[in-house]
Amino acid sequence: MKISDMNWRQVEDYLQTDNRAILPLGSTEQHGGLSLSVDSILSEKIALDAAEPLGIPVFPVLSYGLTPYFLAFPGSVSLRVETYVRMMRDILDCLKRQGFRRILLVNGHGGNQPAASLAIEWMADNPDVAVKFHNWWNAPRTFARVQEIDPVASHASWMENFPWTRLPGVIQPAQQKPMVDAARLRVMGPEAVRAYLGDGNYGGYYERPDAEMLSIWSVAVEETRALIEGPWA
Amino acid sequence: MKISDMNWRQVEDYLQTDNRAILPLGSTEQHGGLSLSVDSILSEKIALDAAEPLGIPVFPVLSYGLTPYFLAFPGSVSLRVETYVRMMRDILDCLKRQGFRRILLVNGHGGNQPAASLAIEWMADNPDVAVKFHNWWNAPRTFARVQEIDPVASHASWMENFPWTRLPGVIQPAQQKPMVDAARLRVMGPEAVRAYLGDGNYGGYYERPDAEMLSIWSVAVEETRALIEGPWA
Amino acid sequence: MKISDMNWRQVEDYLQTDNRAILPLGSTEQHGGLSLSVDSILSEKIALDAAEPLGIPVFPVLSYGLTPYFLAFPGSVSLRVETYVRMMRDILDCLKRQGFRRILLVNGHGGNQPAASLAIEWMADNPDVAVKFHNWWNAPRTFARVQEIDPVASHASWMENFPWTRLPGVIQPAQQKPMVDAARLRVMGPEAVRAYLGDGNYGGYYERPDAEMLSIWSVAVEETRALIEGPWA
Amino acid sequence: MKISDMNWRQVEDYLQTDNRAILPLGSTEQHGGLSLSVDSILSEKIALDAAEPLGIPVFPVLSYGLTPYFLAFPGSVSLRVETYVRMMRDILDCLKRQGFRRILLVNGHGGNQPAASLAIEWMADNPDVAVKFHNWWNAPRTFARVQEIDPVASHASWMENFPWTRLPGVIQPAQQKPMVDAARLRVMGPEAVRAYLGDGNYGGYYERPDAEMLSIWSVAVEETRALIEGPWA
Amino acid sequence: MKISDMNWRQVEDYLQTDNRAILPLGSTEQHGGLSLSVDSILSEKIALDAAEPLGIPVFPVLSYGLTPYFLAFPGSVSLRVETYVRMMRDILDCLKRQGFRRILLVNGHGGNQPAASLAIEWMADNPDVAVKFHNWWNAPRTFARVQEIDPVASHASWMENFPWTRLPGVIQPAQQKPMVDAARLRVMGPEAVRAYLGDGNYGGYYERPDAEMLSIWSVAVEETRALIEGPWA
Amino acid sequence: MKISDMNWRQVEDYLQTDNRAILPLGSTEQHGGLSLSVDSILSEKIALDAAEPLGIPVFPVLSYGLTPYFLAFPGSVSLRVETYVRMMRDILDCLKRQGFRRILLVNGHGGNQPAASLAIEWMADNPDVAVKFHNWWNAPRTFARVQEIDPVASHASWMENFPWTRLPGVIQPAQQKPMVDAARLRVMGPEAVRAYLGDGNYGGYYERPDAEMLSIWSVAVEETRALIEGPWA
Repeated sequence: MKISDMNWRQVEDYLQTDNRAILPLGSTEQHGGLSLSVDSILSEKIALDAAEPLGIPVFPVLSYGLTPYFLAFPGSVSLRVETYVRMMRDILDCLKRQGFRRILLVNGHGGNQPAASLAIEWMADNPDVAVKFHNWWNAPRTFARVQEIDPVASHASWMENFPWTRLPGVIQPAQQKPMVDAARLRVMGPEAVRAYLGDGNYGGYYERPDAEMLSIWSVAVEETRALIEGPWA
Repeated sequence: MKISDMNWRQVEDYLQTDNRAILPLGSTEQHGGLSLSVDSILSEKIALDAAEPLGIPVFPVLSYGLTPYFLAFPGSVSLRVETYVRMMRDILDCLKRQGFRRILLVNGHGGNQPAASLAIEWMADNPDVAVKFHNWWNAPRTFARVQEIDPVASHASWMENFPWTRLPGVIQPAQQKPMVDAARLRVMGPEAVRAYLGDGNYGGYYERPDAEMLSIWSVAVEETRALIEGPWA
Repeated sequence: MKISDMNWRQVEDYLQTDNRAILPLGSTEQHGGLSLSVDSILSEKIALDAAEPLGIPVFPVLSYGLTPYFLAFPGSVSLRVETYVRMMRDILDCLKRQGFRRILLVNGHGGNQPAASLAIEWMADNPDVAVKFHNWWNAPRTFARVQEIDPVASHASWMENFPWTRLPGVIQPAQQKPMVDAARLRVMGPEAVRAYLGDGNYGGYYERPDAEMLSIWSVAVEETRALIEGPWA
Repeated sequence: MKISDMNWRQVEDYLQTDNRAILPLGSTEQHGGLSLSVDSILSEKIALDAAEPLGIPVFPVLSYGLTPYFLAFPGSVSLRVETYVRMMRDILDCLKRQGFRRILLVNGHGGNQPAASLAIEWMADNPDVAVKFHNWWNAPRTFARVQEIDPVASHASWMENFPWTRLPGVIQPAQQKPMVDAARLRVMGPEAVRAYLGDGNYGGYYERPDAEMLSIWSVAVEETRALIEGPWA
Repeated sequence: MKISDMNWRQVEDYLQTDNRAILPLGSTEQHGGLSLSVDSILSEKIALDAAEPLGIPVFPVLSYGLTPYFLAFPGSVSLRVETYVRMMRDILDCLKRQGFRRILLVNGHGGNQPAASLAIEWMADNPDVAVKFHNWWNAPRTFARVQEIDPVASHASWMENFPWTRLPGVIQPAQQKPMVDAARLRVMGPEAVRAYLGDGNYGGYYERPDAEMLSIWSVAVEETRALIEGPWA
Repeated sequence: MKISDMNWRQVEDYLQTDNRAILPLGSTEQHGGLSLSVDSILSEKIALDAAEPLGIPVFPVLSYGLTPYFLAFPGSVSLRVETYVRMMRDILDCLKRQGFRRILLVNGHGGNQPAASLAIEWMADNPDVAVKFHNWWNAPRTFARVQEIDPVASHASWMENFPWTRLPGVIQPAQQKPMVDAARLRVMGPEAVRAYLGDGNYGGYYERPDAEMLSIWSVAVEETRALIEGPWA
């Protein structure tokens, strides 16, 4: 249930009987030939699909995250770590004020990890609220399914190429790109990252059959739903 | 053209011949019986409709803004002023780094005014980039059209009730609510605001014929488009 | 009653029977041929004149505000938005700690608007204190009086030329300057603003008869006094 | 020469031949029976008197400083250290932008010491500008003159009781208050400080003959003027 | 080579021929019966042992990190995320200013992960400096050695019990503690964490033979040294 | 008693009967031919020696402080004032949370003075905790002993040359360096400071007999111990 599809009375009614909420965390950043919003699209859709049968409200995705290494790829936007943790704190403070007590952060981008640190810091100030931080794509079951299909999988590869992240008219390369060296990447500035990455894919095929993609999705939705269901402490 | 419907190469190609970008500013806050995302929906859609024939990219809307007075209405989320201006600065810094030089902020929520202050501060640090801050709903021509139709118009009234902000199954009251006293409202804390506002509408009818609404929309799209076209200095 | 003309015991005595305070917000910035302190002088004097018969204490004016667009005019000083809202929060926190519960911010400079946003944010944290933000010069009655006298009135024009803001020995031009284009101004960096503005006046005559000025002052004092008197919620 | 008595062109003219500026740092805080603005009045007046024959501009005093220990004395206002150093940095940045290269901070309140730390930090970022931090009241010659007259001198005692800081109608006690124990004071919270201090004086007589006061003033003006004159490196 | 065992001239001489530096990141937090400084001791000693034959300087360990979940265990100290990233930025800025261009952060505490995010953000601002973030204890080869010895290993278990982290006179339990449920732990406030953890160990034996410990150490020193040696891009 | 030599249970036991703690504040900065860690080594050792017979725990020294003027001397690291006061606040918050109520900051570096300002600000927020700020080296009795031995004593001179701060193999000059002009130094940027200071010593001999040094140490330990013993209010 999207907060965007609710009015305040409906949220108030909901809070009479439940106190869970979901906040998806995305990013606006290069994903090779895929949408610049891959991480926002996926985290928000996983959250919505997982929450749907449970009737838990999903707040609007945070479309901007932490992605400084991609700043030489046009269209990528990165917040500062300090800005991001402040934003997280402000949002959690508001949700608590209104009665939410169990909050799931569905994260779609590895670079957003400081949100997890902030969540734990915030719980030390607000021990009556539980906040879970969930990297949907590398949670155990989902990641196992990805590995089962094809272990050469990475940022901007087939693994993020879903019917809802690909762009009409963009033809993906057919070959399997060799994995980049992640350790080297981590010590490069943005221009060097771009020169090294080329098209943006970190390694692996650019697309795989939809049946495989949907099977991953299905595992991820269930795995995320299980976290919503609990336990919460 | 949504950034979400582009990949980085398409943005790079665009930057060969143009340097404009649009960033919509929304809010997640009570709008009476309408969607909690009214301000996000409207600012993003105005931006997209205005930009469409010009081919200017529209970045994802900032879904969270400054709305502390509504914090007693469940589902409303407010960032701190400091957080908001930091977020704006970070985003503008990234856009500049990639070559954007003319940026239109299409704002959908009056409370976000400090973004305008930040934009001007930021231009003092970055005098080679022009940033326009545009309150789409009270720009001269759009506001004149609203007044022409019905001068009793306000937050969460008919004036924000478009086919894309109303919720299925929600019946709006038929009467015309008297205008609240805005001066009194401005010195109240959130709980007092809620007690005083009741359903959230600041005054006026709750809905009006779609033909009227679309005529407002059409003026607003044109007025916003004119700002994109320029002049820019 | 100036706080500068009181000692702490006198403030303590005052707080036995009242809980109002006034804080004027000024700016140090170019005002054409007028004093660089126009906004500080006017906001503090309006506050003092309005408060005088009521015996409400007026704290020292905040002499520095937000005015990045004027930074190419020597003598202009601008704080960052973040600094300014922090300063406002600190001061409000102290006033509350000592028992003030109704605080009027008498603002003399349009660029200081984020102080209004902070005041509302602060009331969400401190709902037991009412803070009014008052732009003395464009409040309804005062602005009507200005328009009545001469609708071509603006920053650094006759409208700010009072006996207490003009400088000895400075001769003002006699002609009526055409209004500058405010929309163009808002997308310029400081150097472009200066080149465009020339002497600093935004438009209108540079001076008008004192009788007219004093009639504006008189309306403004009364209008401000009415806000001090209330209602406060 | 007060900046408040100048317009921007006069400052620009000044900058053709000199690049010095003075910024007084005050505080709004209890001073026993004296004005709550003692530190602002004194630092601004010393600055003006010292600068006068040299024609160096004096910016408006920062009326609010760091004085958390006095928060239980009504009328005292304290900024946070972080706010204060940000404010100092913003102001120094502006002065540099306009061409000032030698800046004297005339400080009137011991609690403002972090401004000195900030000034040194800021010079590490801006090595082409010299910033002197001057505690006018305990500079060597001035302090020697105070000690010569009466070594029992302290905050809110006779030593701050000048014709321009005393309040009409307030009778000062005649006796010599014993010095408080400063070490004890420094580990007390505001309420304990107030209980311990009583009337606010730290020790010493409450007033002394004007001839003595003016002799101190005269030394302080000269000592401050010497710092303006240089050397500056 | 400890910076503490050098003077500035020796550092200057070093910088004539090399530009590498090492900064260990520790934490002051409960480690069961072991020293509260386990993470500081280990990260600093690994750094020193790895750097020794290479002659690379090791700066003093950052003794305080991010550990909010342990705040109910006396002696644990946690900085805020914002503080921590500011501290990291300040230090990196200084090292760059003096000529260091390749900096290894040897991290001893998982909670310090935002330092890695900051390092990448900082490299986007300073692309001429390479910063590696190294979790010494779960780097591939070291972690493999731990797993080989005993896969039940965790915070405050045998895996952190080295001759240099154990305390004289403290007897460790002999049994193997079952692993705690890390997922549950992550949504608990500090008091709940303490109640759940009991003695602080997350699972596993409390000590193992020194020969095993030294073999882990030896692998970790070599693995860390390899990172110092490079490649660095 | 070093916190590093304790585990959390030992701290908990301690807090049953006492609530004092000590935090040494150091700096990593040039000290002529002496260790770059002089201020950290001395503040931590004084704290430990003073606390030892009393059994009061000493937290790990803050190895990085405020020293922007020395940034042109390699190996010197300076935090920003804002970072430093945030760090202090975070640490004090944690100590309070765990039951400490009397905290002694043993400072080894004059530049760290804003920590004293923060301590007082923090006590205004936390009036139930007493925080003493102690500059061990210029406290009355210690400074008197230094002056008695040799009044020409300063930063990086003999006065900081203890058996535990000198470096093996470094030969100190034999002559007495004339005192530098501290007033000039304070308005210089880092490069000018370095050029002016030469070897880093501010004036005086580079070493004196150990018997003298140990007599200073002995006074300083006793003077510091007396502060731990109290009174505390």
